[in-house]
Amino acid sequence: MKITALAGGIGGARFLRGLTQSEKVTREVDVTVIANTGDDIWVHGLRVCPDLDSIMYTLGGGISAERGWGREGETFTCKDELAIYRVEPTWFGLGDKDLATHLIRTTSLNAGYPLSEVTQALCDRWKPGVDLIPMSDQRCETHVVVDHPETGARVAMHFQEWWIRYGATLPAHEFIQVGLDTAQPAPGVIDAINNADLILLPPSNPVVSIGTILAVPGILDAIRNASAPVIGLSPIIDNAPVRGMADACLRAINVETNAAAVARHYGSRSNGGILDYWLIDQRDSDSLGEIEELGITARAIPLLMTDVNSAGAMANSALDLVLGN
Amino acid sequence: MKITALAGGIGGARFLRGLTQSEKVTREVDVTVIANTGDDIWVHGLRVCPDLDSIMYTLGGGISAERGWGREGETFTCKDELAIYRVEPTWFGLGDKDLATHLIRTTSLNAGYPLSEVTQALCDRWKPGVDLIPMSDQRCETHVVVDHPETGARVAMHFQEWWIRYGATLPAHEFIQVGLDTAQPAPGVIDAINNADLILLPPSNPVVSIGTILAVPGILDAIRNASAPVIGLSPIIDNAPVRGMADACLRAINVETNAAAVARHYGSRSNGGILDYWLIDQRDSDSLGEIEELGITARAIPLLMTDVNSAGAMANSALDLVLGN
Repeated sequence: MKITALAGGIGGARFLRGLTQSEKVTREVDVTVIANTGDDIWVHGLRVCPDLDSIMYTLGGGISAERGWGREGETFTCKDELAIYRVEPTWFGLGDKDLATHLIRTTSLNAGYPLSEVTQALCDRWKPGVDLIPMSDQRCETHVVVDHPETGARVAMHFQEWWIRYGATLPAHEFIQVGLDTAQPAPGVIDAINNADLILLPPSNPVVSIGTILAVPGILDAIRNASAPVIGLSPIIDNAPVRGMADACLRAINVETNAAAVARHYGSRSNGGILDYWLIDQRDSDSLGEIEELGITARAIPLLMTDVNSAGAMANSALDLVLGN
Repeated sequence: MKITALAGGIGGARFLRGLTQSEKVTREVDVTVIANTGDDIWVHGLRVCPDLDSIMYTLGGGISAERGWGREGETFTCKDELAIYRVEPTWFGLGDKDLATHLIRTTSLNAGYPLSEVTQALCDRWKPGVDLIPMSDQRCETHVVVDHPETGARVAMHFQEWWIRYGATLPAHEFIQVGLDTAQPAPGVIDAINNADLILLPPSNPVVSIGTILAVPGILDAIRNASAPVIGLSPIIDNAPVRGMADACLRAINVETNAAAVARHYGSRSNGGILDYWLIDQRDSDSLGEIEELGITARAIPLLMTDVNSAGAMANSALDLVLGN
């Protein structure tokens, strides 16, 4: 069986770890992960791919359990030095272990290797147990249109600056993916969608993770037309994001922060959207009917990933619902 | 008074620290240091300038007292990670604090700033108390022609590989400065020589530090023709290098490892060379006559830099000899 998942960083990575460690995902199951690279950023001359790395480190056993991003047992010596030199950005968490990944990626990219091949090379070490593919080999960075907090002028700032430096507190007028017009799906992306037996949307941010992937020309159409069923898991529980600041993102695209609104935003495949199935949390079971009316099969289950086992149980529920028990 | 010094890394840096902290170097003395950049190397995509950094860190109070290169209280987390990724070179000592310097330098160089300006910017933090100028803004790297230890083929390897990885144990047939044909002295270098009241050669490696600087087109001639007296301090004591592996370098250019042979190699200014004065260690006082016969004024003094004070005493002796007491 071939499972293809679209994923952002922390939430996606944790769900995928549950999936790959679930008893239903045996050696006969190939998992391909198409990762969001809209968060990617050049920092101090290094190419940083937060979502690719969160997935790689999480599935490869190197992630910081506490932070959910970066490496376990990390130090920030170099970052502190850069701050003493007064070189911006000082707000980006560049760990000393993590730096090795960025140095290798940057030298490889500068030598002309595409991001997809570089990612594969990095995974030689991490052995994440999935085929990890960036959504695109082209630079396609999410910027956020905001009123600048000091000048008041309407400006576009990099997603990371909005997310990390300002904690997504500046109201977002719009998200813009710089480079989208010339971006193509990375090699393997469309095939992974076309050849999948099951397509999964982990509980990643619907706007700046899943939405960003879907925006790469060709990916949304491929999912709409895929032969495999598509099942999503709501990142919204009890009208709030499980983690991160998805509400600030949803607000910018005029989508309410609740599980049914996100389902409506994605839409049913029978109606030109991308969802066949939608898993919501038990606390949101009131909206099951509303979701079913969209033409999407819905179930309410426990959706809080407190550990690998709960994430695995969520993955099992998703597989059960689509494949039958 | 204006003092201009040519200098390599550790030995040069320690001497210069003695000089700048000596009571004879008051606020009225401007010291300009022209640093060897032949050791510079691209490592993991970063531009590393070992001699510039040794001088900057030593004079700025950030040097590792024990190693003499890199930062005090340094960690090597990133380096260890790179080794786990099996990315070469694994033999280069890239510290986590040090990385900040290399990241800033690399992004600045890639943005188009010349090395001399980047060095000045880095010195804004370190305040070394001297004008620190690279010998050239152009890439001009020393390579060593050796018989490859495995294949036996005659190859040119980067100086750092020969020096660090092989500990200068591979017999050197020749030193080649790649890029020398198009290299020019960095802005300020020739002026610093022409306008100096005193030109100093610290006890740096005569071949791959001082020799490399002198090879940059225009520098040797400027020193030959300078109005200032030139005084050198022998890096060879008792027929052995004080530290480092200068003997392996001298052997490659057929110069014996003793204080008089190095003086002969530099030559007297009265005879087309660059030395007016040559300070040797007390243990080598037997060769004073031989050196004087070259037309070079020589003195034997204690030349071992065990600490800042002994380096300062050496600097004082040099100033006394040239300027009178």
